[in-house]
Amino acid sequence: MGVRTSEEDRVSPLWSQRARDLEPYVPGEQPQIPGLVKLNTNESPFGPSPKATEAILAAAGDALRLYPDPRSTRLREALARRHEVAPDQVFVGNGSDEVLAHAFAALLQQPSPVRFPDVTYSFYPVWCRLLGIAHETVPLDADFRVRVDDYFERPGPVIVANPNAPTGVAIGRAEVARLAAGRPESAVVIDEAYVDFGGETAIPLIGEFPNLLVVQTLSKSRALAGLRVGYAIGDAGLVEALTRVKDSFNSYPLGRAAQAGAIASLEDEDWFRRSLTAVTRNRDDLVAALTRLGFDVLPSAANFVFARHPRRSGRSLAAALRERAVLVRHFPAPRINDFLRITVGSQSDIESLTRALSAILATPEPG
Amino acid sequence: MGVRTSEEDRVSPLWSQRARDLEPYVPGEQPQIPGLVKLNTNESPFGPSPKATEAILAAAGDALRLYPDPRSTRLREALARRHEVAPDQVFVGNGSDEVLAHAFAALLQQPSPVRFPDVTYSFYPVWCRLLGIAHETVPLDADFRVRVDDYFERPGPVIVANPNAPTGVAIGRAEVARLAAGRPESAVVIDEAYVDFGGETAIPLIGEFPNLLVVQTLSKSRALAGLRVGYAIGDAGLVEALTRVKDSFNSYPLGRAAQAGAIASLEDEDWFRRSLTAVTRNRDDLVAALTRLGFDVLPSAANFVFARHPRRSGRSLAAALRERAVLVRHFPAPRINDFLRITVGSQSDIESLTRALSAILATPEPG
Repeated sequence: MGVRTSEEDRVSPLWSQRARDLEPYVPGEQPQIPGLVKLNTNESPFGPSPKATEAILAAAGDALRLYPDPRSTRLREALARRHEVAPDQVFVGNGSDEVLAHAFAALLQQPSPVRFPDVTYSFYPVWCRLLGIAHETVPLDADFRVRVDDYFERPGPVIVANPNAPTGVAIGRAEVARLAAGRPESAVVIDEAYVDFGGETAIPLIGEFPNLLVVQTLSKSRALAGLRVGYAIGDAGLVEALTRVKDSFNSYPLGRAAQAGAIASLEDEDWFRRSLTAVTRNRDDLVAALTRLGFDVLPSAANFVFARHPRRSGRSLAAALRERAVLVRHFPAPRINDFLRITVGSQSDIESLTRALSAILATPEPG
Repeated sequence: MGVRTSEEDRVSPLWSQRARDLEPYVPGEQPQIPGLVKLNTNESPFGPSPKATEAILAAAGDALRLYPDPRSTRLREALARRHEVAPDQVFVGNGSDEVLAHAFAALLQQPSPVRFPDVTYSFYPVWCRLLGIAHETVPLDADFRVRVDDYFERPGPVIVANPNAPTGVAIGRAEVARLAAGRPESAVVIDEAYVDFGGETAIPLIGEFPNLLVVQTLSKSRALAGLRVGYAIGDAGLVEALTRVKDSFNSYPLGRAAQAGAIASLEDEDWFRRSLTAVTRNRDDLVAALTRLGFDVLPSAANFVFARHPRRSGRSLAAALRERAVLVRHFPAPRINDFLRITVGSQSDIESLTRALSAILATPEPG
């Protein structure tokens, strides 16, 4: 077993220039604390549909010796049925991160920089760097809302998360339509990872806008973060571009268990409705509790809330919560440094969080 | 449901130049023929370890709501134990295709073209095209062997499949050592997808050669093609380059079921030994049967054989076999146009193939 050298020491002429240009990634903390209340990665507090589990079991026997369907035909058909589109308007991948990575490569790399909000999913600039794509950020307004008009000032493709992350703030379908209509010469990608919790999906617009691609995931509202299934819906021409990139990268991104589990989950509408009802009810309770504690809470259409306290820094609150075995997310970044992103957990999670915050706020801020 | 236009019609200015440069991919046929004997994709005739299935079942419950470990720590530790290396010398990915794609991006993109055999895995030039990597092919010798000396004529990185695909022909570990020693300034990637069936792995060399990366998969010898798990073993510096590319592409390529199933499979040495013994015995029987029928069979260290008949074209044999519900692989490519690649199946598969070939060879070639 060799001595582990520092990351920087490992950069070598054996690396490609592309690899040398990349920053080492520091993974989010995954502490092994007994009784931890984990509200930092927007996972569902409820398990997935039992039908998904059953389908995975059925797919996990001798059939695993065989390659999966490289086109995920049955899964794409299930998604097409659910969203009332054609199967050739559906692309699937290994989580919506892989789908988004292929969208950057296939659509968002253009002569003009791709534009996205200054406060949004932190992976967008990472894909730009990996793929050599120029990008520009467009500030959210003072209320952390996407202002569609700001995207018309310059040409080029656009990607917007809606509801946005980490703010949870959503724009309506009419605004997305205006965005897509305003730049017909460029792809407009709407990242709807959280849309099921209260946003308006843009999928009904895809027939009208051949430049519109909508990306969703089964990780959040389907409680299948551990299965790795995401998808995109858009004009068959855009889907074909993603498919060509995918077929030149990895023919079989979704295993048999992932395809089978995803299909079964999509067919369990009862579970889906019940789960969404519970999450939105818990979100109301979480917002009420935080408001009572003096927090400002942004209006959330997601399964998390973004909140700041007028008298405490985000960093100190996150650290104090961690000491009490409650994990939330703090982003040391401009404009949002004072906020905490808190996943909507179970009722018990909300009680633990509220109790911990009450205790923290009752004592003077350290330092 | 829209009318499906032809693939070519879909190329549009909305696509990136990268996507426009890619060829549409025609997936391998997956016919739904009752009683089909499927010997075209080198899958195992035996199911995977029952322990892998059990571990997948255990991972497929409520825990699926949670993200998997992005670093696949336990799986990398299991691979490290098995191969007697350190965990930071192990990289894992969504099938060895994803691992290889990241190796092309992280290591094989250099000022000098990457070099690989003229007859080898057909995905290598596809990754080069996707990533904008220049490449050169180096001819195998007249017996379809890799001649290491031919790779010393020019600088630059190298990738060699060993055993090679689709030939099944292997070179020894000493030859791999000579290749790695001969170009210390460049990465040398050895793609060992089929090594367990009779090749000599180069993994024991990685301590000696910081430029050597060895790629393996659980799809073939572990009978887990449907699970999508591959890995690379090499110097921690090379692994760090792959990790940076992976972390800039998709943080969570392996789901919970994939990680759990892979770990359990690696720990079932009994199943592994029995399965390899059965495949190599069946390979002997397949080679004997083909030889009796007049085929020339290349010496195979893989779970497939590469064979030609002196009086029949590869294309006509593959077509005639298909009519008899036996699927084998034919490559319409220079040097290998007369060959069939035939997976080592079960005893029953071998009997069906032999019967079909006897009947085909007893009748005159059509056309």
